[in-house]
Amino acid sequence: MINNRLAGQMAFIAEIEKLKIVYRQNGIIGGGRQENSAEHSWHVALMAFTLQEYAKDNTDIPKVIQMLLIHDLVEIYVGDIFLYDEEGREEIKVQEQEAAEKLFSLLPDDQGVIFKDLWNEYEGKSTREAEFALVLDNLQPILNHYYTNNQNITGKKLKRSQVIQKKLFIKDYSEELWEFALGIIDKSVEKGLFAEG
Amino acid sequence: MINNRLAGQMAFIAEIEKLKIVYRQNGIIGGGRQENSAEHSWHVALMAFTLQEYAKDNTDIPKVIQMLLIHDLVEIYVGDIFLYDEEGREEIKVQEQEAAEKLFSLLPDDQGVIFKDLWNEYEGKSTREAEFALVLDNLQPILNHYYTNNQNITGKKLKRSQVIQKKLFIKDYSEELWEFALGIIDKSVEKGLFAEG
Repeated sequence: MINNRLAGQMAFIAEIEKLKIVYRQNGIIGGGRQENSAEHSWHVALMAFTLQEYAKDNTDIPKVIQMLLIHDLVEIYVGDIFLYDEEGREEIKVQEQEAAEKLFSLLPDDQGVIFKDLWNEYEGKSTREAEFALVLDNLQPILNHYYTNNQNITGKKLKRSQVIQKKLFIKDYSEELWEFALGIIDKSVEKGLFAEG
Repeated sequence: MINNRLAGQMAFIAEIEKLKIVYRQNGIIGGGRQENSAEHSWHVALMAFTLQEYAKDNTDIPKVIQMLLIHDLVEIYVGDIFLYDEEGREEIKVQEQEAAEKLFSLLPDDQGVIFKDLWNEYEGKSTREAEFALVLDNLQPILNHYYTNNQNITGKKLKRSQVIQKKLFIKDYSEELWEFALGIIDKSVEKGLFAEG
């Protein structure tokens, strides 16, 4: 007999399969389709492993990685909201909390609390781990957009200044990462992927 | 000026974007396309976090997660070889080593060694971490195949006995996980996703 504990864990593992069909504004290399939130989560988690030396002292990198693996799971129920859609992002907050409640309650109680706390910590943006995770989550789309020559954001071509306004907090975190990001943003403008101004 | 170290790390991060277009035999929910190795890697990494209590004592779970995040990266150059294609899997081993050399050499030397050692450790299948990673990597496709009603494996409908032969090592690792896996295999036979016999 499968015990309830394992059954709950497996129900969670089956449910999160659905993150693979939550599509983002970004594209993938080759342009065949939009990027989904599962592969985006993989990419940022591996970035945390690769770029760990740029994290502030005493940042718990395994915790950052776990946070990034789950940070977008609520999108299974509420979808991905475009970073530049301010109104949409405010409206969605209550729904995201409900989504977290629904999803993490599939897990055994003790584990559901751990996952939900970790997700809330990310949303709170205030701990060292959440800060580094947020930097990576904002860096990845800039890189992806440039390297995939993403033209998918139909009718939503962003201005350089809009991108910089949203991403400038990276500079406060790491001058090095920001210098790289800004270089990519400027090369994206040259390619016509962002508008000047 | 961007230093060489960060430039190498970012070159690696840009290159691994390509894992998102390495498609596997498995499908995704809804059946719209095949699963790719990036989202598969995300799924197994999150399984390691969720199922950590089934790992053998003293298994380093963050290391398992890092291993799973990189375990399929060589497929960027050599593609995904179907688990049941014995001949293909033997032939590919040298090419995979070359692919690992090529990919991880994008990173700064010290970091390239860490990544390559971790990948080799996974391939070696002998440490506690590699053992647990291998169990999860073999469990995920069974679950995915069942929950997505995968019909994508054209002309390759597997027999129950073939699947069990490949996956039976999970039983030696964890009776609990195996009992669950076997239940899913049998339910897959009932659904017609695997052939009887």
